[in-house]
Amino acid sequence: MAQKVLIHGATGETGGDILDGLVADGSFVSPSNPISPHRTQSYQEIAALVRPQSLQKLVTKSLKSRGVKVVVSDLVNQDVEEIADLLAGYDTVISAVATTAQLDQLKLVDAAAKAGIKRFIPCGFTSISPPGGVMSLIRTEKEKIHERIWYHHLPYTIIDSGTWYQISFPSLPSGKVSYAFMGDGNTIVADGNAPNLMVDKRDIGRLTARIIKDSRTLNKRVFLHADVLTQNDIWAIMERKSGEKIEAKHATHDELLAKMHTARAVCMKNPSDPRMRFAAISAEYMVCKYVRQDNNPQNARYLGYIGTRELYPDFEPNTFSAFVDELLAGQAKKLYRDKFEFMQKKST
Amino acid sequence: MAQKVLIHGATGETGGDILDGLVADGSFVSPSNPISPHRTQSYQEIAALVRPQSLQKLVTKSLKSRGVKVVVSDLVNQDVEEIADLLAGYDTVISAVATTAQLDQLKLVDAAAKAGIKRFIPCGFTSISPPGGVMSLIRTEKEKIHERIWYHHLPYTIIDSGTWYQISFPSLPSGKVSYAFMGDGNTIVADGNAPNLMVDKRDIGRLTARIIKDSRTLNKRVFLHADVLTQNDIWAIMERKSGEKIEAKHATHDELLAKMHTARAVCMKNPSDPRMRFAAISAEYMVCKYVRQDNNPQNARYLGYIGTRELYPDFEPNTFSAFVDELLAGQAKKLYRDKFEFMQKKST
Repeated sequence: MAQKVLIHGATGETGGDILDGLVADGSFVSPSNPISPHRTQSYQEIAALVRPQSLQKLVTKSLKSRGVKVVVSDLVNQDVEEIADLLAGYDTVISAVATTAQLDQLKLVDAAAKAGIKRFIPCGFTSISPPGGVMSLIRTEKEKIHERIWYHHLPYTIIDSGTWYQISFPSLPSGKVSYAFMGDGNTIVADGNAPNLMVDKRDIGRLTARIIKDSRTLNKRVFLHADVLTQNDIWAIMERKSGEKIEAKHATHDELLAKMHTARAVCMKNPSDPRMRFAAISAEYMVCKYVRQDNNPQNARYLGYIGTRELYPDFEPNTFSAFVDELLAGQAKKLYRDKFEFMQKKST
Repeated sequence: MAQKVLIHGATGETGGDILDGLVADGSFVSPSNPISPHRTQSYQEIAALVRPQSLQKLVTKSLKSRGVKVVVSDLVNQDVEEIADLLAGYDTVISAVATTAQLDQLKLVDAAAKAGIKRFIPCGFTSISPPGGVMSLIRTEKEKIHERIWYHHLPYTIIDSGTWYQISFPSLPSGKVSYAFMGDGNTIVADGNAPNLMVDKRDIGRLTARIIKDSRTLNKRVFLHADVLTQNDIWAIMERKSGEKIEAKHATHDELLAKMHTARAVCMKNPSDPRMRFAAISAEYMVCKYVRQDNNPQNARYLGYIGTRELYPDFEPNTFSAFVDELLAGQAKKLYRDKFEFMQKKST
């Protein structure tokens, strides 16, 4: 089915991967796009919703050069009717926004409902956990968006990805992977045997391209099913491939719970401080992944998700092992680095 | 699969139907039960969780005479460990509690998780509506129970039934059906064409017996799919079968919304008054059924429910038309009448 897709947050970490995945898929790309030889009859259009203040940024200009239509919108200051006018005519709207901007989507959902969008993908793309305050910050805000979707009877797909390879490896004594390190200080929790759903974040885009073309995923929750690894698995792969011995710190379940309660309390006292908020969210993720052990395929199915392995058995997700090869070869990217610098490098 | 089933609320309106349905099914009934010739090898036990103060009631004694084991428990005063000890060994726990007692289930869920119950059925058995405050009282409390279930990773099935035939018919000018009338004053909303999922409440029990024996419904939401009728359909059936002309009052969507907002505000000011609470819940049901139009199979599927028609195509639900025949023949029962009187009649 031909469809026009609009991405909100296409210049961010996840939105960028989704844009790449849609372009690589070939089904969605503009005829003016010089880098896609794969376009098919189901081709239509990819557009990115961009804030007025971002229009002159290099990253926005690069969208245009890739055949992506830029739609200017200011979710904060425009009213729902104005945003709905901009969304009208798109089939699918995909939202991938910053941790701090989840509730901005409320207005986007209202506008999508008004514009008759055929499928709305709210900003998910994270670990599996249940609603109801277990993840009291980020998941609870994401659930508010789901509730708004259901309030409007808006067609949807909720996509969660598990945790990303790119933030899940330990550092090495040699400093060889420090250029891309985003971890939490080589801490192994309890016996290190909690299984966690993991994905190469670039596969988020490739799989989202499949999901939005698939009627089986309409009004469903989908989890991206690549690797399921424990911390011990990860350590073993890193040691074997690097030939280095990795020293680990250790934390107990009780220590993680105490850290989470403290971080939540500090965040409550400083609700407008993004660092305190980020610390609390990170502490909640640690508890969900290693204490509660929510982030695994079994729990995803229990919570009503369908997995991409059963939906797309032909899709070969990138393995953590292959990612480590890339990482050790110095070819991984550090996330969330300055986008301007990133785009400059790309354009030279 | 053999299973031992415990019902919380077996002496109430819905719990009574569930008990009847399980007994009629034949798979669950005690060998001492004189009225079940159908028991099979999958037979085990039905038990009812009964409060100490209800032990001497006739309704409790009648449970025993039907082969139902009585398990005494006081959810309010016992702690989770004590309740868990009582639940240990049961496979399935079904909860059907009064509108005002939904949150009593929190402790029951904690105990069920501790006891390793293999399937917990929270008190659902009502109209379809989304979580998130659309039904700010009853549904929101039911969702708190769901969240507690997911918190514990407790296996579950959420069962919703649509609205019941028994509370959905208009009164007749002749007074012929007044003996069983529970309606809202013969009000038709807007054009009377909102489709609503409806069920004979006795089928709740028959279908629950199927659902708890079915592995396909584990960790799923299920809706009971009998008739889907508009108010105009209901009026037409009642007029045709009774030969009477039914006068209707009319209400607009805006009138229903205004009534709901007022009832909610009054309830907020009188949180401990059950009449105010009941009025607000009723007003919310009217909005969900006739303004939002949430209570239909399409919306149930959208919210992730599976319907019993696709699960059990051989099951013939009682039709509204057949219920009306019973009603006009004077054989329907008025709901929520005094249980003591009801049981006395039954035992004579």
